[in-house]
Amino acid sequence: MDYSEEALRKHKELKGKIELKLKDTLDSKDKLSTYYTPGVAAVSSRLAEHPEEMRDYTWTGNTVAVVSDGSAVLGLGNIGPEGAMPVMEGKAMLFKHFAGIDAVPLVLNVHTADEIVATVKALAPSFGGINLEDIAAPLCFEVEDRLKAELSIPVMHDDQHGTAVVTLAGLINACKVTGRKLSDAKIVVVGAGAAGTAIIKLLHAYANPRMFVVDSKGIVSANRQDLNDEKKKLLQYTNLSGIDGSLKDIMEGADIFIGVSQPDLLTSEMVRSMDKDPIIFAMANPKPEIMPDVARRAGAAVVATGRSDFPNQVNNALAFPGIFRGALDNHVRAITDEHKVKAAEAIAGLVENPTPDMIIPPVGDERLVPAIAAIIT
Amino acid sequence: MDYSEEALRKHKELKGKIELKLKDTLDSKDKLSTYYTPGVAAVSSRLAEHPEEMRDYTWTGNTVAVVSDGSAVLGLGNIGPEGAMPVMEGKAMLFKHFAGIDAVPLVLNVHTADEIVATVKALAPSFGGINLEDIAAPLCFEVEDRLKAELSIPVMHDDQHGTAVVTLAGLINACKVTGRKLSDAKIVVVGAGAAGTAIIKLLHAYANPRMFVVDSKGIVSANRQDLNDEKKKLLQYTNLSGIDGSLKDIMEGADIFIGVSQPDLLTSEMVRSMDKDPIIFAMANPKPEIMPDVARRAGAAVVATGRSDFPNQVNNALAFPGIFRGALDNHVRAITDEHKVKAAEAIAGLVENPTPDMIIPPVGDERLVPAIAAIIT
Repeated sequence: MDYSEEALRKHKELKGKIELKLKDTLDSKDKLSTYYTPGVAAVSSRLAEHPEEMRDYTWTGNTVAVVSDGSAVLGLGNIGPEGAMPVMEGKAMLFKHFAGIDAVPLVLNVHTADEIVATVKALAPSFGGINLEDIAAPLCFEVEDRLKAELSIPVMHDDQHGTAVVTLAGLINACKVTGRKLSDAKIVVVGAGAAGTAIIKLLHAYANPRMFVVDSKGIVSANRQDLNDEKKKLLQYTNLSGIDGSLKDIMEGADIFIGVSQPDLLTSEMVRSMDKDPIIFAMANPKPEIMPDVARRAGAAVVATGRSDFPNQVNNALAFPGIFRGALDNHVRAITDEHKVKAAEAIAGLVENPTPDMIIPPVGDERLVPAIAAIIT
Repeated sequence: MDYSEEALRKHKELKGKIELKLKDTLDSKDKLSTYYTPGVAAVSSRLAEHPEEMRDYTWTGNTVAVVSDGSAVLGLGNIGPEGAMPVMEGKAMLFKHFAGIDAVPLVLNVHTADEIVATVKALAPSFGGINLEDIAAPLCFEVEDRLKAELSIPVMHDDQHGTAVVTLAGLINACKVTGRKLSDAKIVVVGAGAAGTAIIKLLHAYANPRMFVVDSKGIVSANRQDLNDEKKKLLQYTNLSGIDGSLKDIMEGADIFIGVSQPDLLTSEMVRSMDKDPIIFAMANPKPEIMPDVARRAGAAVVATGRSDFPNQVNNALAFPGIFRGALDNHVRAITDEHKVKAAEAIAGLVENPTPDMIIPPVGDERLVPAIAAIIT
């Protein structure tokens, strides 16, 4: 099915995908006077004195702003706020559909950390949480860090942490399937952007495995002169032995490959050079770093991708609805590493008997949101 | 009925008054792939190249942001963003109920013109229009002027212009009832805040009547040393003869009293000192400058208030839904004085045979939105 044509047709027919709904009708003078003036003044007065009751008397307690500057939209790159809007509306649909959360898509035409942070901070009283989306690395790191430090509502850049949580969930079960301990594994991560960076940090927090990260110039190492600050920080968690070389070099003997990079970058030869029964997470979208059938023929024991038409889809939608549901319900002020680890374990735990073709539950598994929300406390 | 108790009860029971609704279900893989990845990429790519098509492919073409910093909420004053939220949610209900517009309540915790303007500009691609609400004078004038100058979507501060439009509509018919020409009238406006200022400007644009504005210190005149810039600007339209004195002084011989100020400020004696069959718009809320029965006994021919329990309720809800409906539908980039005059005439025109107790249609008259929207082109 050609989803492009269908998407253009449906988006135009419906003029977008979301709308506002009233929780009660306004069909009488009494209702107008209850929900608007003069009655609403009593609610306003109360909240002016008790701002923490916003969540009880307004919709804010069930809302998340989905915020993007359009600088890294899907695989399309920096296409600006207008191009980002359909994705943010789609994300709002997922929030409502999976978790009952009233998400508001907000696309910004400012693109510096100072401006994005100032805008989101100014808006923060309007929402119960902030989902940052499709903001380019390394800008996304500074924006998220500053907002987390300065706001008392949960802030999460989903391209980083949603991906990291689901990746960790998949790896937990892939290790079960292949009889590995994650803490003993040699892991190669390709792609040092938002997702790669967050995956590395979460794997470090969870199991402190031996990790290497590879970007377009090769293995990220202290000997390189071209590293930005964020890549330098990754040297705290990766390549402690200071190895230089190419992807091909470092794949030798690796247990796990994690790709958040480019299509067709992993060859059969590289897979064959890995440890026995290797694990391949080839999550480039829409075309993975290696096609699953090719990887399996080269000896991969477990293959995951970002695609819904192959087994083991690593999809953020497994994680973010439950994470924000829990954060809103339990009045959590920040999403921590501990939350992310527990969310990954909760997702992994829903697969009772992991197999090579079933290491993570499918999108839409109704146990996901309650299982995750219960541990975000 | 005590609306305060009922309002607190219903707001808490429903946890706010609005929610998100999906225009289609997400109950199949095909729909997920159409509304989100991979299909949505085609829509994003198209909008990146043709940002003007946002209104055709996203919800933005039917949206208005209802923005407040909480600095002048109802009669409650500067109660902050949390206190403002229930009012903004209520306003969003009115937008949807009366005009089918998807309004998003946004309360800001910034309070300077620079910060408010920067925040709204950053957000502007997310919306089809901006309704400023409950921002204190004189800040509201600078914020609106700058946003109108810098944005290409309609921006309207409803406390100013919604009130002005409905006041003008009422005056047009009140003049009919009393056999006056508005251009020949002597008008006293009490209150030089957001509403008073906008009323004066609109009356000037419409009929250039002889006007005087009175604030807490008396008649605003060039001889006063205590005027802020906005009040000085009012001297372009009012008190051209340079009269000093009190409200009582200037009421003598006046044709029309317009109060957007304080309760009980107008006495029977003052009404008796006016011209024959005077017109009284006593719009202080919830308690008017003079009670309608008192004004009528003192000789007023027509009395309007802001209240729904008296005849002739001057209510912004008569104007703003149609104004924004028309602006969105007709791709209007700015609401002009001409639009406001035409909107007032459209509202007045819906009352075929004006009487002292029926100079403006009631809130909820279904002819209002189409009649107004048709002339906002």
